[in-house]
Amino acid sequence: MVTLDFNKMNGLVPAIIQDYKTCEVLMLGFMSPEAWAETLSSGKATFYSRSRQKLWVKGKTSGHEQIVKEIRIDCDDDTILLLVEQVGGAACHTGYRSCFFKKIEDGKVKIIGKPVFDPREVYNK
Amino acid sequence: MVTLDFNKMNGLVPAIIQDYKTCEVLMLGFMSPEAWAETLSSGKATFYSRSRQKLWVKGKTSGHEQIVKEIRIDCDDDTILLLVEQVGGAACHTGYRSCFFKKIEDGKVKIIGKPVFDPREVYNK
Repeated sequence: MVTLDFNKMNGLVPAIIQDYKTCEVLMLGFMSPEAWAETLSSGKATFYSRSRQKLWVKGKTSGHEQIVKEIRIDCDDDTILLLVEQVGGAACHTGYRSCFFKKIEDGKVKIIGKPVFDPREVYNK
Repeated sequence: MVTLDFNKMNGLVPAIIQDYKTCEVLMLGFMSPEAWAETLSSGKATFYSRSRQKLWVKGKTSGHEQIVKEIRIDCDDDTILLLVEQVGGAACHTGYRSCFFKKIEDGKVKIIGKPVFDPREVYNK
């Protein structure tokens, strides 16, 4: 397995998730060594949830998994870039395609795009 | 100024830098409140260097500045996405266009792309 530098962030590295077709940046998560190993072996983006303090297979609840199409690491081996197929068309738990749906214009936040799904329907089944 | 959540990472937030024309992810850096304010006011990507523990205007030494074209923040207000014009054509200090020039294939690292500049010429003037 390719070894990363997990020391700079107390055992975690940031992982940028990009849509492999549109190149849109969908989200950023963090991976522990276990999440990294799981991502490599399963082919599905797996993160370490800092708030819940445990492994988190993206899409496990919503069904909106991220199928890994390409894996890149940076010059310092301390950041991951995953190109993925976003199942369900949306990465953000709010229902937006990308977590980066807030654009800053003239010092104010402007919402761009429209939600793909209604989080109340997806998470409160 | 738009307020971000700097608490999750001891005063820093990750900032993803993406080429505004090609959509290529160029690098990931970290911003402190001061770096964020400086980025907003100057229009040039400014980071906090964890190793040097000080503000770092990207391209100050190399001339390879990043002119901010669009600013987005994520759903949780704890990650920045900057769309930039990369002056000099390369973001990585190794001379590659993107810091993510290492692709993982069959468990091994494969270098993709070619360096745009020779770091010995740029940094050892």
